[in-house]
Amino acid sequence: MGKKKRTAKVTNKKQSRRAKKMGKAPGSVIYMGNREGEKSSVHILEYQEHQIDEFEFDVYKQEDFEKIIEFKNSPSISWIDVIGLSDEKLIEKLGTSFGLNLLSIEDAVNTNQRPKIDEYDNYIFGVFNMLYLDHNNELVAEHVAIVLMENTVIVLQELKDDVFDGIYNRIKSKTGRIREKGADYLFFALLDAIIDNYFVILENINSKIEILEEDVYLHPTPEIAQDIQLLKKEVLRIRRWIYPVKEMISKLIDTEHPLITKDTKLFLRDAMDHSIEINETLQVYREMSMSLMEMYISNVSNKMNEVMKVLTIMASIFIPLTFIAGVYGMNFDYIPELHLKYGYFYVWGLMILIFVGLLFYFKRKNWL
Amino acid sequence: MGKKKRTAKVTNKKQSRRAKKMGKAPGSVIYMGNREGEKSSVHILEYQEHQIDEFEFDVYKQEDFEKIIEFKNSPSISWIDVIGLSDEKLIEKLGTSFGLNLLSIEDAVNTNQRPKIDEYDNYIFGVFNMLYLDHNNELVAEHVAIVLMENTVIVLQELKDDVFDGIYNRIKSKTGRIREKGADYLFFALLDAIIDNYFVILENINSKIEILEEDVYLHPTPEIAQDIQLLKKEVLRIRRWIYPVKEMISKLIDTEHPLITKDTKLFLRDAMDHSIEINETLQVYREMSMSLMEMYISNVSNKMNEVMKVLTIMASIFIPLTFIAGVYGMNFDYIPELHLKYGYFYVWGLMILIFVGLLFYFKRKNWL
Amino acid sequence: MGKKKRTAKVTNKKQSRRAKKMGKAPGSVIYMGNREGEKSSVHILEYQEHQIDEFEFDVYKQEDFEKIIEFKNSPSISWIDVIGLSDEKLIEKLGTSFGLNLLSIEDAVNTNQRPKIDEYDNYIFGVFNMLYLDHNNELVAEHVAIVLMENTVIVLQELKDDVFDGIYNRIKSKTGRIREKGADYLFFALLDAIIDNYFVILENINSKIEILEEDVYLHPTPEIAQDIQLLKKEVLRIRRWIYPVKEMISKLIDTEHPLITKDTKLFLRDAMDHSIEINETLQVYREMSMSLMEMYISNVSNKMNEVMKVLTIMASIFIPLTFIAGVYGMNFDYIPELHLKYGYFYVWGLMILIFVGLLFYFKRKNWL
Amino acid sequence: MGKKKRTAKVTNKKQSRRAKKMGKAPGSVIYMGNREGEKSSVHILEYQEHQIDEFEFDVYKQEDFEKIIEFKNSPSISWIDVIGLSDEKLIEKLGTSFGLNLLSIEDAVNTNQRPKIDEYDNYIFGVFNMLYLDHNNELVAEHVAIVLMENTVIVLQELKDDVFDGIYNRIKSKTGRIREKGADYLFFALLDAIIDNYFVILENINSKIEILEEDVYLHPTPEIAQDIQLLKKEVLRIRRWIYPVKEMISKLIDTEHPLITKDTKLFLRDAMDHSIEINETLQVYREMSMSLMEMYISNVSNKMNEVMKVLTIMASIFIPLTFIAGVYGMNFDYIPELHLKYGYFYVWGLMILIFVGLLFYFKRKNWL
Amino acid sequence: MGKKKRTAKVTNKKQSRRAKKMGKAPGSVIYMGNREGEKSSVHILEYQEHQIDEFEFDVYKQEDFEKIIEFKNSPSISWIDVIGLSDEKLIEKLGTSFGLNLLSIEDAVNTNQRPKIDEYDNYIFGVFNMLYLDHNNELVAEHVAIVLMENTVIVLQELKDDVFDGIYNRIKSKTGRIREKGADYLFFALLDAIIDNYFVILENINSKIEILEEDVYLHPTPEIAQDIQLLKKEVLRIRRWIYPVKEMISKLIDTEHPLITKDTKLFLRDAMDHSIEINETLQVYREMSMSLMEMYISNVSNKMNEVMKVLTIMASIFIPLTFIAGVYGMNFDYIPELHLKYGYFYVWGLMILIFVGLLFYFKRKNWL
Repeated sequence: MGKKKRTAKVTNKKQSRRAKKMGKAPGSVIYMGNREGEKSSVHILEYQEHQIDEFEFDVYKQEDFEKIIEFKNSPSISWIDVIGLSDEKLIEKLGTSFGLNLLSIEDAVNTNQRPKIDEYDNYIFGVFNMLYLDHNNELVAEHVAIVLMENTVIVLQELKDDVFDGIYNRIKSKTGRIREKGADYLFFALLDAIIDNYFVILENINSKIEILEEDVYLHPTPEIAQDIQLLKKEVLRIRRWIYPVKEMISKLIDTEHPLITKDTKLFLRDAMDHSIEINETLQVYREMSMSLMEMYISNVSNKMNEVMKVLTIMASIFIPLTFIAGVYGMNFDYIPELHLKYGYFYVWGLMILIFVGLLFYFKRKNWL
Repeated sequence: MGKKKRTAKVTNKKQSRRAKKMGKAPGSVIYMGNREGEKSSVHILEYQEHQIDEFEFDVYKQEDFEKIIEFKNSPSISWIDVIGLSDEKLIEKLGTSFGLNLLSIEDAVNTNQRPKIDEYDNYIFGVFNMLYLDHNNELVAEHVAIVLMENTVIVLQELKDDVFDGIYNRIKSKTGRIREKGADYLFFALLDAIIDNYFVILENINSKIEILEEDVYLHPTPEIAQDIQLLKKEVLRIRRWIYPVKEMISKLIDTEHPLITKDTKLFLRDAMDHSIEINETLQVYREMSMSLMEMYISNVSNKMNEVMKVLTIMASIFIPLTFIAGVYGMNFDYIPELHLKYGYFYVWGLMILIFVGLLFYFKRKNWL
Repeated sequence: MGKKKRTAKVTNKKQSRRAKKMGKAPGSVIYMGNREGEKSSVHILEYQEHQIDEFEFDVYKQEDFEKIIEFKNSPSISWIDVIGLSDEKLIEKLGTSFGLNLLSIEDAVNTNQRPKIDEYDNYIFGVFNMLYLDHNNELVAEHVAIVLMENTVIVLQELKDDVFDGIYNRIKSKTGRIREKGADYLFFALLDAIIDNYFVILENINSKIEILEEDVYLHPTPEIAQDIQLLKKEVLRIRRWIYPVKEMISKLIDTEHPLITKDTKLFLRDAMDHSIEINETLQVYREMSMSLMEMYISNVSNKMNEVMKVLTIMASIFIPLTFIAGVYGMNFDYIPELHLKYGYFYVWGLMILIFVGLLFYFKRKNWL
Repeated sequence: MGKKKRTAKVTNKKQSRRAKKMGKAPGSVIYMGNREGEKSSVHILEYQEHQIDEFEFDVYKQEDFEKIIEFKNSPSISWIDVIGLSDEKLIEKLGTSFGLNLLSIEDAVNTNQRPKIDEYDNYIFGVFNMLYLDHNNELVAEHVAIVLMENTVIVLQELKDDVFDGIYNRIKSKTGRIREKGADYLFFALLDAIIDNYFVILENINSKIEILEEDVYLHPTPEIAQDIQLLKKEVLRIRRWIYPVKEMISKLIDTEHPLITKDTKLFLRDAMDHSIEINETLQVYREMSMSLMEMYISNVSNKMNEVMKVLTIMASIFIPLTFIAGVYGMNFDYIPELHLKYGYFYVWGLMILIFVGLLFYFKRKNWL
Repeated sequence: MGKKKRTAKVTNKKQSRRAKKMGKAPGSVIYMGNREGEKSSVHILEYQEHQIDEFEFDVYKQEDFEKIIEFKNSPSISWIDVIGLSDEKLIEKLGTSFGLNLLSIEDAVNTNQRPKIDEYDNYIFGVFNMLYLDHNNELVAEHVAIVLMENTVIVLQELKDDVFDGIYNRIKSKTGRIREKGADYLFFALLDAIIDNYFVILENINSKIEILEEDVYLHPTPEIAQDIQLLKKEVLRIRRWIYPVKEMISKLIDTEHPLITKDTKLFLRDAMDHSIEINETLQVYREMSMSLMEMYISNVSNKMNEVMKVLTIMASIFIPLTFIAGVYGMNFDYIPELHLKYGYFYVWGLMILIFVGLLFYFKRKNWL
């Protein structure tokens, strides 16, 4: 019951958030997440091949705010990381200052937004779902928007987490090509990091399937059936988040937008391969989870079969024997067998004979 | 039984309405809804960036009728809202006066019309299903036709309801861009409001699924199975109403019709995202409702398993014991055990032994 | 058994008819229907906007035959209705006189022909399945071929039936546009009448589904399962007949054949909508009929569950009681309880206690 | 067991044949059928509109061999029929003499080759599966390769059978157009004869489905389930053989190869219709065979239901009665009822009452 | 349990390997296989039409290494076979020396890489899964990368195995065309050898299906159900490995890359046919394995049916008889039948009558 109410509450919350948008004009910047009231912060990494600087700004100071906007025009590559999306007004002001369309800013703070790539004249805008496992091994889906401008990449996310840490380290330590390349390569690298994390999620699902496969076989309880259904739902959910990515990358590869260089498209082709692999794997997991349910049902039938066999054997053996005992429990005046000297033992002999005969019969039927 | 008859009646009504069209020429304006005899009324909102006027006309007065037609030529944006479609003649006269093709007028009053977009030289014509929940939380599908002309949007609907209230308020209060933009933006805004309402319907289905999921697990009665089937049917029905919308918007985005500006197409791209998301969600719901049925069947099997176990345990334990009691109820002249001093207690000992042994056996099989 | 034989006979008949074509050259005009030996007759309706004439000819008289052929060159619109296709020679002679390709004539009399549209230089040839319900509400599929030539439409059909009566009346009474338009509009109107009738068939299937839904729920007998299978088969069959129509109309809309005017294409777009709707509805019916079977199986399981519960309750209650009775039916010399003054009543007390306890247990398990 | 071994043998044989190709270069002419050691023979039919000649050659004589090759250059149409493909060397020699690519010759003798059409500069090469029923009504799939060259059609097949007899007769008797047309029409006619035979196979499957439908209903034994599985496998197999044909014909219709005239393409369009119909029919049969299995499972459940009802009725009626009899079989010193004058009859009355009551209960539940 | 832990370990291993790549830049050459620490070796076959040389190099000697690189410029065809991919540094050095892109080298050592073809300006790069059966008839999937350069084919694989032995022998013995053709033909031949081996895998699956079909019918134990699930998983896995090959070949056929000659494309068309056939066969196997599970479930039901019948027959016959015996075991003072002279025998007669009657009834129901 408790669970039901909880579910209902979650739904209501979501509904009320969705309701906030109902009737509003498109392009209305409305935060849809559940971290209302948190302040935003901005971290900036500015780098060239031989130089790197790191900044942290208090975006609520006008002075700092203006400094942030200026990075837009810097000739070095700037990675502007905006953490916290709940302050709709601030994000709108920031976005407009960077020249973003209101529709893009709306999508950036709409944490329910389906993954997508939109191309505008002066920037490319992408919304993704960053999937990772939290400390309890629970799946977390975090909404992230990435904007590619000339020499600048703006990342808008809710939490400061570590999916992008590898890229941060590579830039800092100058490993890999990233320092030598443009903003579009950084954009690709961030996208690649998100996709790489999808593989972790897939492996997590894979081990869940393996555990369930064994459970289904060893003890097909109704709880297992529910776990299988939960798994199926999870695969469906993940598929919805991940599925659009393939098409999005394909769009980036085919684009003629000047911000994406031919060199980066080569790397995007690689990311494309990964997203195809992920989609295929999800498809396989879907079929496996359906097989699991089938296996479960067949095992439930088998268990019932076993139960029925025990009943049938016990009843089939003892009901006839009880009948015989009943016959000689009758009170007729004249039942000749009753007066035989060894009548009682003869009857035992008969009953043992029937017993052994039936055992033999069931043995031959492979029921024992 | 009562239900059956009701269904039959509904079908007959629909059939007879469909029959009205049988053998009629295409382009015959025949009302297909079930609100025959209601009068139509016309509300008009005329606005520019800095001015707004609202009118209500008695369409049955020739004087008013002529005034309505004149709005067509007004340089301001006119939102002409026609409520009530059952007066076929009036609608036909109104439609022709606005220069609509007879086929369009036919589709406007044909409440069974599949959603579609048709482009004509001087207007764009769309038919939609407006879905909302009524006071009893029952799904209502209302047929609505929207015509986009130069500076004019005509909405033909059956009821004065509130799906478009948000837009009305935005125009009145000058929030959002709507007052600065053309008729095509109003057309988009109406379409967007309809699509936004689809999300409410989806969430309603989602909570139904969640309730059924729990019910299936806790008490899989045949009524639950029927509820699942009703849910599946509802998803199928909604899919038929919603599914064409994606293709319709895609048609509007790709059109070269001069009435749709490039600026509005940017917003349509956003509506496109929503309609894709809706279709994907419906697909997920469809798979979930199929899983529900599977879960139900597996739970019915489980329940039967449990019933069988009780039977098997009771029968397997007491049938052999009854047999033993029967043996010593036999009336043979000579049954040595009967004359043992503690014979009766020995037998009780044996029976308790068998009882415990079988309990232990069933315990080991995890049946208890 | 009787049914089997009948089926076998039908198959043999069909096979032998199919066998008639085996090894024949393509373009061999061979009648495939089952109305051999019937005579053909020809009815002609010739009309212009302000004039209409009706003729009936005895096609077996050379004089009449020649008159028929002359209608081909009349400037008025001629609707030539050929009833009865079994006289292969006559049809071939008639077809060739009208300039039809032998392949078309073959398809016209081949009642097994899949619906299709073929374009030739001087005519457009379509084969359709006219579906209607006969007096016993049984589905009838009648093969009909329609040829569109300049100013002439030839209809070749097996029976004089009334699907086209609405059009006939509209022409006669000058309602609708039909008298003002060309032969291509007549061609469209005939096609539209055929498609309109498909809706009647769909509604018939719909009511069958509704009746079965209730039957499945109330009394899931094996006969119901068979009815569901028959329904599924019927939906499959109808889908095969109807499915190609959408593609055929699409072909007509995209054609550049001079016989189809741009104006008629507008109407064809309408027919296209209908054929899409029909295909979608059939798809929904298919899924519903599959759900029905699922529902049926789940209800059979439920019924079995109920049966099992009755057995389990009866057996679980009375088997232990019988055991107790058996114990005190034993003939041991010394059974102390037997000699208690109220022993018999104590035992009844014990038995009632067990009885009530078990009833309570089953109640708590919701089995009662 | 015997069956298993047989199956294994067949597989081994096939595997060893497949193994023959393993590691061989593509274009190695290796016979894959199971008629090794049979001699080839060549029959030739040479015809023009007003002349016809028939030849039989001993292809192993160099003299005859050379004569055969000369037909290639004859201005008349030559239908060269090569029977027996196991002599790889001979076929290679013959093929090369006719100017065939080694890859084509390989495909001609590879009886496992998937149906396909290959276009080369000077010929069109097709591989088909000729399906027919043998004397035991068993399905036979015979590999046949047909080569279309200028004025020449070469047919390479394993057996002299009668699928092409109709065409042979039409050429001989000058019925149909075939004598007036070119080699491409002969090519089409052969292809058409193969497709026509597919309909016979489909009808055979149809009658199998009809017989199984009845069997499933009347006596759903496990053997029937196996027959259904065999049917499903057969449909799958046939689909693999037939499915590519549609695409092949479509390729021929779209080709710009000079060997296919526009006139023949008209006939190919007809064959296309047939192949679409065949594929659709196979699809329907597949769904029907799946329905059969579903029906079977539901009928097995029904039968079990019936068995359970009998058990439940018998047990529920007699177990309580036996309990009552047991009660009055107890040996308590004081059981007042036993000493009533009509006690025995009262008990019978009670038992009959219970009996009738339970019968009535089961009747009301529709179990009787 | 042991199995579960093993599975978990394997997963962890894989995960940790995958983790090695996490956060690394794309193009990082990281070995993903499980043969770490093994040394690489290089074998080279250099051939022209009339000359052939074979070399084996110690790639860790700088002198040998340089010799290997020089083969790149040799005018003869060089087949450079690199065995062992775990030495990431060496492979990277080798790859770069041959002018390969880092992304290609990464894919070459990434043993999890999905099969693909990438075209670069100066080479074509393909990754494949070489499938074969090891000595225990277990399926082995070996990652192999093949690079086509001008006059050079580089094969990078983990093990020296014999899938390519046939090609090696053909080159050595000068059978087939291979010596006369270019490097692209060698590339094709290697690809063709890989595809040819897929057929062996398919036949292995086919015999597994055949064995399971019989097992399912004869003894549908839960182990069989698990075997069917394993088979399904295997088919899914193989499909993922094999499926992309068709598209890859199609890409090679459509390419305009100068390294692929028109002549080789003819052979690729042949390989295309094979890969289509393989995909279709896998599809059929998938459907068959699903049918197997269905068959299994239906057979489990049948077995249960049989069990139930035995129980029903035994219980239905002996419970009424026991009741009769119980009646005459009652201790009423006055039971007239008990004092009949032949009462006992009359009762036996009655019981035998009931016994025979019930037997007859079950016989008629076909339960015996």
